[in-house]
Amino acid sequence: MTITITAFERSPDRGRGLARDMRVRWALEEAAQPYEVRLVSFQAMREPAHLALQPFGQIPTYEDGDLALFESGAIVLHIASHYAGLLPDDKNARARAIAWIFAAVSTMEPVIVDRETARFEEGKESWYEERLAHVERRIRKRLGELSARLGDADWLDGQFTAGDLQMISVLLRLEGSSLLEEYPNLCAYIARGKERPAYQRAFEAQKAVFLAVSGGGQS
Amino acid sequence: MTITITAFERSPDRGRGLARDMRVRWALEEAAQPYEVRLVSFQAMREPAHLALQPFGQIPTYEDGDLALFESGAIVLHIASHYAGLLPDDKNARARAIAWIFAAVSTMEPVIVDRETARFEEGKESWYEERLAHVERRIRKRLGELSARLGDADWLDGQFTAGDLQMISVLLRLEGSSLLEEYPNLCAYIARGKERPAYQRAFEAQKAVFLAVSGGGQS
Repeated sequence: MTITITAFERSPDRGRGLARDMRVRWALEEAAQPYEVRLVSFQAMREPAHLALQPFGQIPTYEDGDLALFESGAIVLHIASHYAGLLPDDKNARARAIAWIFAAVSTMEPVIVDRETARFEEGKESWYEERLAHVERRIRKRLGELSARLGDADWLDGQFTAGDLQMISVLLRLEGSSLLEEYPNLCAYIARGKERPAYQRAFEAQKAVFLAVSGGGQS
Repeated sequence: MTITITAFERSPDRGRGLARDMRVRWALEEAAQPYEVRLVSFQAMREPAHLALQPFGQIPTYEDGDLALFESGAIVLHIASHYAGLLPDDKNARARAIAWIFAAVSTMEPVIVDRETARFEEGKESWYEERLAHVERRIRKRLGELSARLGDADWLDGQFTAGDLQMISVLLRLEGSSLLEEYPNLCAYIARGKERPAYQRAFEAQKAVFLAVSGGGQS
């Protein structure tokens, strides 16, 4: 049985590894599980075949035999629960690592995504810049809280877990903005994640998709 | 060992059951587990003792012996994983129910919370009404997708699960707005959730806190 995931045929991030299939790729690399990728166009994402797998018309999805899953948080948790390498053995530590997966996707990511949504959907409004100040204040509040919790530790709760994988993936969406630079320990945390060989294999795999589709990166 | 959760000392929703402790109460009632509640003030939520339990200064938290957890999604999943009644026995169906927990808190809830955040933090801005149209368009898109998936089924995937508990809890935040009325099957879905005896016990318990603090509801 082969694990198959879906990813954007043409990722809006131009191969920067910010699309959510990257998180699943990274988890599968940490778990040393091979996988196949089915690329989907934006048009196909709105069609019944894809909506049957992903009711909100997004990527990634995950298929393994009879099981079909959606939501990157759920997929990463599924991988972490079934293969070694992404959750601690101690049952309390496992529960806490799962809490960090949820914190990443439901407390941290929404304020960060809001900044991207504002730019794409409201960027031409006269009030865009004014509103951006509200959005960035909310991001700073969450980054400050996360920074305070992380302190000088390497990972959020002892060893590297699926919670760190998901949190670092979310924080990466801010790379290149000045927001992250205000929190040197979060920058170092992200850098530690990116140094992991599993991250790098996943990154190269998703970048290869972009380069192939865009004609060798010449576009 | 007694399970202890935290809740707002004075819930901003005035006992309407929209604070996130309600989800944990509901899950514990479905699982037939007794619990205690520690009420926290807004000031205490920003202090080190609470931040040690909840790094983002929110409620609820969950304590059971040596285990301390945060994030309502993670807490509901923990309860569902440890006690009967909230997840199917079939392992694929369990994984799909967990995907619905994630869909509730990371795909559906952010667009719904955005409407509340806009009102509280940006409601006095000259562009508030104009922006609200963007926010409500995003909510309708997600509600339409969820409505299409639910169809005429009672629950999202077969029997009632923790995924329904979390999704209904999220949708309840829209009650009283006209947005939900556009989707009769979602209204019926919410009503089915509210008819569950476990929901009703949890609702009465959180309402009793509000009534006690507000002086018998006379305020």
